[in-house]
Amino acid sequence: MKSLTSLLLALPLMAAAPPLPTAPTSPQAKSPAEIVGEAPAEDWVDILPSDLLVMDLAADGQGRARRVVIQLAPAPFANGWVSNVRKLAQARWWDGLAIVRVQDNYVVQWGDPEAETAAKARPLPQDLARMAERDYVARGRLSLATGMNAVFVPRNTQQQWSGFYRGWPVAGELGADGTANWLVHCYGMIGAGRNLSPDTGSGAELYAVIGHAPRHLDRNIALVGRVVQGMEHLSSLPRGTGSLGFYQTVGERTQIEAVRLATDMVARERPHFAYLSTDSASFRAYAAARANRRDAFFNRPSGGTDLCNIPVPVRAVDGVK
Amino acid sequence: MKSLTSLLLALPLMAAAPPLPTAPTSPQAKSPAEIVGEAPAEDWVDILPSDLLVMDLAADGQGRARRVVIQLAPAPFANGWVSNVRKLAQARWWDGLAIVRVQDNYVVQWGDPEAETAAKARPLPQDLARMAERDYVARGRLSLATGMNAVFVPRNTQQQWSGFYRGWPVAGELGADGTANWLVHCYGMIGAGRNLSPDTGSGAELYAVIGHAPRHLDRNIALVGRVVQGMEHLSSLPRGTGSLGFYQTVGERTQIEAVRLATDMVARERPHFAYLSTDSASFRAYAAARANRRDAFFNRPSGGTDLCNIPVPVRAVDGVK
Repeated sequence: MKSLTSLLLALPLMAAAPPLPTAPTSPQAKSPAEIVGEAPAEDWVDILPSDLLVMDLAADGQGRARRVVIQLAPAPFANGWVSNVRKLAQARWWDGLAIVRVQDNYVVQWGDPEAETAAKARPLPQDLARMAERDYVARGRLSLATGMNAVFVPRNTQQQWSGFYRGWPVAGELGADGTANWLVHCYGMIGAGRNLSPDTGSGAELYAVIGHAPRHLDRNIALVGRVVQGMEHLSSLPRGTGSLGFYQTVGERTQIEAVRLATDMVARERPHFAYLSTDSASFRAYAAARANRRDAFFNRPSGGTDLCNIPVPVRAVDGVK
Repeated sequence: MKSLTSLLLALPLMAAAPPLPTAPTSPQAKSPAEIVGEAPAEDWVDILPSDLLVMDLAADGQGRARRVVIQLAPAPFANGWVSNVRKLAQARWWDGLAIVRVQDNYVVQWGDPEAETAAKARPLPQDLARMAERDYVARGRLSLATGMNAVFVPRNTQQQWSGFYRGWPVAGELGADGTANWLVHCYGMIGAGRNLSPDTGSGAELYAVIGHAPRHLDRNIALVGRVVQGMEHLSSLPRGTGSLGFYQTVGERTQIEAVRLATDMVARERPHFAYLSTDSASFRAYAAARANRRDAFFNRPSGGTDLCNIPVPVRAVDGVK
């Protein structure tokens, strides 16, 4: 864990650290980051290259490369949209398009700036799936990670719950038409923009959450993944001054150089990541520490925390970059 | 509501808007922003100039001014720290200092870069108050805004609750030593950095929350205010690449040109803001709409939301800038 890549990845873990002038010591208890650092190798789950989307933005003003790596959502969530995103990436559909909107405490959005102008819009691949609104949720019972009693969430009742499923923050509900499950709009999650109902979006227009979890979007829009590296290249972009944070001039947009699946890169150039299994004892200890900070700086544990304040640890795997 | 100032202020309200390529219409129900727009004049509460802190950062790369306006926290919260912040501003203590840390999804922090080096540190004013850890909470019973049933929060039990108090997000607890109340670490809130316990910070080192609400900091550190304008000048700053997001070189820091109380500015230059009374029917309708979006884009109301997803509307008052 010594490369720049590793350093950047460590940030989500350090998000637990206090606002201190200097790095804190840990006299009393382990910090969440320390618990993650000590997790045994077998608690880390490799992310397949077929689940990684690599977005290269134009270099910044100082010529520095800006790469954003996205992990695609797993089955049974958003299957149609994720399948479309893979097709769009394989067609290199996003290459040369742009980030068009940055709204503070909400979302960064990218896609075709001319999407609303039929004559200028870039044609979509022919074989994209069309999804129904019922597809915003996945049906059936899922086995969530256990031992998450410290996670307090809105409406955490018998009828509605939330937790972690195979490395992802999820919520569920037992309704009249059975069990519904959905991914949760936490910081860094990626969704498929859409127009007014009944449009559900194709996956060509994507956004990333850059603020407090907008949970009101849950079940209203499909989440297709999350940022696992380079989040700062999205979150620190200048905010747009137009309505809803859209940029008002072409010059304000950030160009997308390329979006590829890692499988479409030569093997030695592929990024390689692993996430901490949310079914592991390490994750349970990490979540408990997030919910009850006792290390260093803290003298008053919270007694609980919400789902989105327990970001699932992801790390770059050494040896492959 | 036509000036640039007003436009910037409208952003927190529009944070409710969906990730759409175009601005949504509202065929079915009023949006939170519309409800706020229609609030009668008497529902808006003027913010006194003595409660406004004006921080001017160095101009950005294109020569554009960057002003951040902060509303100081009201009694009975953090009285000692807020008093110190006023003294520091009156002494122009921050002028020429810098933003030293930007950690993604967490905080932006500013103060004296040399604070930890006794020989180089800028001396603090002599008469600053020293606070105890017990001062992180305010004692006694507070009358919170009523009609907030739509707000679901962690541990919303008889022993612990949250809501709004005179325009601010607060939480409370009935413990063995009576009722404790505290401000909540929502997006845009400003806190007083500190070193390890029992240090409580003087108020000279400040931070702003730029990510998902880090509620684990509640009761562990004093909140002294919130950003009411110019939040984007903090949240879009480049992230630091050092430990905890500290900048590693002097050149990365953003200089602070001046921090003043509005009362120390000539009257015609003072910023002027008002917040939507959290005891008003307008605010109750706004909060209910945030918790159950039915306008435009939404087809599945959430049934509730958390405290930090109901940002208290603040607007610039026309005529005075």
